[in-house]
Amino acid sequence: MSRWIGVEGNYSLLEERQVAYLDPYAERILEWLNSHPGLRTTSSCIGRITLIEGYWPWERKGNSRIVFKTHYPITPAVLALGISQPFEPLWLKVTGPIVHFRAKTPECAAGLLDAARSEGFKHSGIISIDLEGSEWCCVVEVTAPTQFSSPLKLDGVIMASGVQLAVLARRANRALAEGRRRLARLAWRVRSGLAYECP
Amino acid sequence: MSRWIGVEGNYSLLEERQVAYLDPYAERILEWLNSHPGLRTTSSCIGRITLIEGYWPWERKGNSRIVFKTHYPITPAVLALGISQPFEPLWLKVTGPIVHFRAKTPECAAGLLDAARSEGFKHSGIISIDLEGSEWCCVVEVTAPTQFSSPLKLDGVIMASGVQLAVLARRANRALAEGRRRLARLAWRVRSGLAYECP
Repeated sequence: MSRWIGVEGNYSLLEERQVAYLDPYAERILEWLNSHPGLRTTSSCIGRITLIEGYWPWERKGNSRIVFKTHYPITPAVLALGISQPFEPLWLKVTGPIVHFRAKTPECAAGLLDAARSEGFKHSGIISIDLEGSEWCCVVEVTAPTQFSSPLKLDGVIMASGVQLAVLARRANRALAEGRRRLARLAWRVRSGLAYECP
Repeated sequence: MSRWIGVEGNYSLLEERQVAYLDPYAERILEWLNSHPGLRTTSSCIGRITLIEGYWPWERKGNSRIVFKTHYPITPAVLALGISQPFEPLWLKVTGPIVHFRAKTPECAAGLLDAARSEGFKHSGIISIDLEGSEWCCVVEVTAPTQFSSPLKLDGVIMASGVQLAVLARRANRALAEGRRRLARLAWRVRSGLAYECP
């Protein structure tokens, strides 16, 4: 969903993938996340629900692929339809929000990490450091643990059916909503100011 | 499992929890992870399988608690026993290895992050920076994505039974083994030297 808000308030996309449409929620969140002068988002996802065909739910390459993806709540019918297709192994995967920021100084990065952790984005961290000394000191990945991966079909066995599909879909939707709540709180926190002094 | 190997080769525990026994695998891994002069482990887990009673599998506090924990493979009977108890909601959770390091310089941290990412520890990052300027510049969290959380009992519904338990246990054990493989490769890599020059 990410786009970059320049210093003069001009919008320009930093992500490789062009975004044709931003829903009002994502638009507001991005504005707030980019309101701090020492931080800029470079990519982001507000959280999503996917069906993954692959041996492991965490794989991205090789024999693994996404066969269904949405950023909105699902119905049990989505799961039933996935299971009825010849996908195997098949996993339901709910992923929390993930945002990448460029930070201007170590203080900006530390302030963002403090805010992220206290708003429920544990395991956030600086994933790369600019050792050459450009305008940006590092890239911070902010990620929420609001996720789970549950097998739907594994080793030739159907792992969920009937009322179990309704239970799974409901819990997946609630996990998605919990991620959104945390993202909104983080965005508000960034907008309100961080713990350490930044440029 | 973590303990700290001092500069003179003396062992001293840094973790709050005293470790009574280290298996040979963990012992060797820790020696390798601590063989770099600019890095020291401060806490670590080689990966584990847990049963969690709680609304969400990622929660640690509040109404959530671990009702079973092991660092070794499980049998389907472990899952059946968990389900037969009055725990609810109940999740099976497999977690990959996680190690915290202190790094002496940004170069050491960057070298470790490079090695971690190429050995399958994505989402690793610097989780705190020492802005006061002590001997250590930062703390790096190295974590593998080799994990999944699958509900066993949710909203009053039993989510797995019969052959599904055997399938779940087998896949959980394989995820645990995959985490171990990545940890061993990372430890070997740290022992062999990192990409950037460190003290």
